[in-house]
Amino acid sequence: MSGTVVVGGGIIGLSIAYRLMSRGADVTVLDGGDDGAWHVAAGMLAPGGESEHEDPQLIRLLERSAELWPGFAAELGVDVGYDDTGTLSLAMTPDDLAQRARVWSRQQLPLLRPSELRTFEPALSPRVRAGVLAREERQVDPRKVVRALRERLGSRVVLKRVSSLSDVDAATVVVAAGCGTAALTGLPVRPVKGQVLRLRGEPGLLRHVLDAAVDGREVYIVPRADGEVVVGATQEERTDRLVTAGGVRDLLRAALDLVPGLAEFELTETTVGHRPGTPDNAPLLGRLDERVIVAAGHFRNGVLLAPVTADLIAGLVLDGSSPPSPFSPGRF
Amino acid sequence: MSGTVVVGGGIIGLSIAYRLMSRGADVTVLDGGDDGAWHVAAGMLAPGGESEHEDPQLIRLLERSAELWPGFAAELGVDVGYDDTGTLSLAMTPDDLAQRARVWSRQQLPLLRPSELRTFEPALSPRVRAGVLAREERQVDPRKVVRALRERLGSRVVLKRVSSLSDVDAATVVVAAGCGTAALTGLPVRPVKGQVLRLRGEPGLLRHVLDAAVDGREVYIVPRADGEVVVGATQEERTDRLVTAGGVRDLLRAALDLVPGLAEFELTETTVGHRPGTPDNAPLLGRLDERVIVAAGHFRNGVLLAPVTADLIAGLVLDGSSPPSPFSPGRF
Repeated sequence: MSGTVVVGGGIIGLSIAYRLMSRGADVTVLDGGDDGAWHVAAGMLAPGGESEHEDPQLIRLLERSAELWPGFAAELGVDVGYDDTGTLSLAMTPDDLAQRARVWSRQQLPLLRPSELRTFEPALSPRVRAGVLAREERQVDPRKVVRALRERLGSRVVLKRVSSLSDVDAATVVVAAGCGTAALTGLPVRPVKGQVLRLRGEPGLLRHVLDAAVDGREVYIVPRADGEVVVGATQEERTDRLVTAGGVRDLLRAALDLVPGLAEFELTETTVGHRPGTPDNAPLLGRLDERVIVAAGHFRNGVLLAPVTADLIAGLVLDGSSPPSPFSPGRF
Repeated sequence: MSGTVVVGGGIIGLSIAYRLMSRGADVTVLDGGDDGAWHVAAGMLAPGGESEHEDPQLIRLLERSAELWPGFAAELGVDVGYDDTGTLSLAMTPDDLAQRARVWSRQQLPLLRPSELRTFEPALSPRVRAGVLAREERQVDPRKVVRALRERLGSRVVLKRVSSLSDVDAATVVVAAGCGTAALTGLPVRPVKGQVLRLRGEPGLLRHVLDAAVDGREVYIVPRADGEVVVGATQEERTDRLVTAGGVRDLLRAALDLVPGLAEFELTETTVGHRPGTPDNAPLLGRLDERVIVAAGHFRNGVLLAPVTADLIAGLVLDGSSPPSPFSPGRF
C-alpha cells in the first residue's frame, strides 16, 4: 500500500506529486493516459487580467501562485518556457475599449495609445485603439512543464485508468482528475469546451502575450520563443471534442484582425480541451473524507494555480494544514 | 519491355491507363506514391462556370468531357459520388453580383431572387443577393474515382518514383505527372497552390454545389451525400505545402458567411494541393517525340477532363489519332 496516490497525471496532479516527492513523501501518480486541459492550454499566467467579476480570495490565490511560478520553474531545472516579457491587453473598437477600460482602471495601469503600443509590438494592426502593458502577466509552456514534471517523477507515474476510488489501494488518495473528478467524487465539476489553435512561423513577429477584445470577441495570442503562436480560446458549455468551422473561423478572424502578419503563419494544430469548471469557478481544494483529498476544478487557471495547489495539498497531506476555507469542496 | 508505361498515378494517369486497359492494351502505371491534386480537389464538373476568359476550344473540350462523365462513372461500376443535382452560382454583394452577372448572362441562365434561391437551399444566408442554377454543373468525388480506378487496374499500378524518362523501359511512355511533368519533360508546368478544407456534419444541410462570390472572394462549397462538405479554394502562385492561418480564415469566413449553419460542422481536414498550370492554363495533350506522349497541365480541370483525356491519349497511342492541335505541347 503506497503512502499517497494521486489520481490524475495532468499539470495539477503532477505538480502535487512533485511537491510531495521533493518533501520526501512516498507518492504514486495514476494517469489515465488522456491529455488533460494542459495539453491545449496556452499557459498564460494572468492573476489579474480576468478578474473583474472574480472573488477577492480567488484573486489572492492567483496572485500567490503567480509569485511562486519563477521559483517553481527554476526548481524544475529545465526550460519550461517561463517568460516574463509581459502581456499587452488590447481593445480594437470603442465598444471593446469601454469593456476593457473598467478592468484596466482597477488594475491602475496607464493607458497606452496606438503609437505607443506599436513600439512594443510593431506587428499590431493600426486599428487597435488602446491597451495597457501588464508586466506581471507572464507565460509558461504547459507542455514543457508537464514533460519536466514527468521526467522528475519518473517511474512514480503509472499508466492506469481509475474508475472508482475504492480500487485505489492507498492510505491517502488525492483526486486531481480535472473534469474526471465529477465521476470519481460526485462533486460538481463540469467541462467547459475550449478550442485552441497553434500557428508557426518566423520567430520574432511578436514578443508579448496579447490578450484582446476584437470587435466584441475575446482572443489571446501567446508567442513562444521558437516561433510557435498559440491562439485561443472559445468558451463553450459543451462536452464534445469537435473542432468546429465556426470556432476556428472566430479565432482566426480575431487573431488576424489583431496581427495581420499572422496570416502567413502555418496553421499547425487545431485542438479541443475542456476546462474543469465549478459552480463558482473557483477550485476545489481540501479533504473529502479521512482518506480522500480533492484538488480539481481549476477552470481557466490550472496552469497558473499549479504551484500553489502543489504546496497547499502537500501541506494538507504531510502537515495536516487545511487550504483556505473558501476553496473547501464542502461548499457544494 | 512493357507496351505502354504511364508515368503518374493521379486521376489523369489512371484514367488513361484504364482506357488503354479497357481497349486491350498492355499498360503499366508508375506511381511515385504522393497524393496528387485529385486528393485535394472538390470534384466540381463545371464546364462553363469559370470560362469567362477561357479559350472557346478549351470550353469545347471541357463540355465534351462533361458529357462523357456519366458514362465514365457508370463504367467504373462502383459509387464514385457522381451527382447531377447541379450548381448554384451565387453573389453576395452588389459588387459580387456585377462580377458574376457577365458570366450568367453569357450562360443565358435565368436570374433567381433570394426567395427562390432559398427554396433550393434553405440554409443560404439571407444576405445572398442573387444566383443562377446551373444544372449541367455536377460533381464527383475524386478520391472515390481514384480508388475505383486503382481497383480496376490492380497490379498494373506499381509504386515507383521516376526521376528520368530514360529510366523507363517501354515502347511508349505517357507522362501524366501533373506538376512533376516539368522536371521530366522541361515543359512549362507550374504549381498553383490551393488550400482546401473538409467539414463534416449532419447530411442534408445542403444539396447543391455552391459556387459563390462573397464580398469579393471566390469560394465553392461541395456537399457530399454522407455529410462531408468540401470548401475551397485559395489560388496562390506558390510552391510550399503550408496550410496558412490566412488561407483557412479566408475560406471559412466566406463559407460561413454564405451558409451560417456550417459553423457547427466539424473541421476534419485542412489540405494543400498544387494545380498543374500552364502559360495559357490549357492542358498539354500530345506527342513530344516518337516514344514520349504528354498529358498534363490540366490546371483546375483535371477531374473534369479525365474522361476526354483518357479517350484522346488512348486514341493517340492505339490509333495514331492526334488530340486537338490547340493542346499540342509543341505550342511552348
